[in-house]
Amino acid sequence: MNILLLVAHGSRREESNIEVDSLSKKMLQFNSNQFDKVMPAFLEFAYPSIPEAIKKCSEMGASRVTVLPYFLSAGVHINRDIPEEVNKASQNFPNLEINITSYFGSRDEIAELLMKTALED
Amino acid sequence: MNILLLVAHGSRREESNIEVDSLSKKMLQFNSNQFDKVMPAFLEFAYPSIPEAIKKCSEMGASRVTVLPYFLSAGVHINRDIPEEVNKASQNFPNLEINITSYFGSRDEIAELLMKTALED
Repeated sequence: MNILLLVAHGSRREESNIEVDSLSKKMLQFNSNQFDKVMPAFLEFAYPSIPEAIKKCSEMGASRVTVLPYFLSAGVHINRDIPEEVNKASQNFPNLEINITSYFGSRDEIAELLMKTALED
Repeated sequence: MNILLLVAHGSRREESNIEVDSLSKKMLQFNSNQFDKVMPAFLEFAYPSIPEAIKKCSEMGASRVTVLPYFLSAGVHINRDIPEEVNKASQNFPNLEINITSYFGSRDEIAELLMKTALED
């Protein structure tokens, strides 16, 4: 079983975390059977944390976890915090193959999508 | 003159702020003459701040400023901080028409783009 973790920053504002949860559900319609499940996880302010989510994946019988950082730029969270959290968690689950994808903000499509947002509003 | 301000959170890591600057330049190629200029601005950790950027727009002779929040979810920054900064700044420039667009994370295209990122990596 291969689980995709959509890792967001997390907010003190619950509605914002619910948005991430909804997004993880919405992503499933664009899945091509590569992932059996998409689950949200949060770096701060919300649950599950990255270690909690990885533990859950292991308990659910996953053999692979793909961590997709839902962040816009390569700040400290991308360069230090997320890899650190993933490394710590992976030591507890040596049979779990965990990889981290590019962060969302590295997508080439963003510039066009931003301009679209500005022009439509 | 109509200036588009791409407002990002800002990072302690300079490379991340440079990414936003590059993105603001890249956006111009998708412009349909509605905006004369695209400039970055930051909520924290980087310059120009929102008030500084709005002041600069006024000095450059802008009559309109469009604030595009480059944020993923509707947390406190979208709901409180950015509107507050914009309101404060706009009191100093009553002749400047300033509007705030939807935040980037509200785009419908994001779920598909996220799944694409996960599948390609």
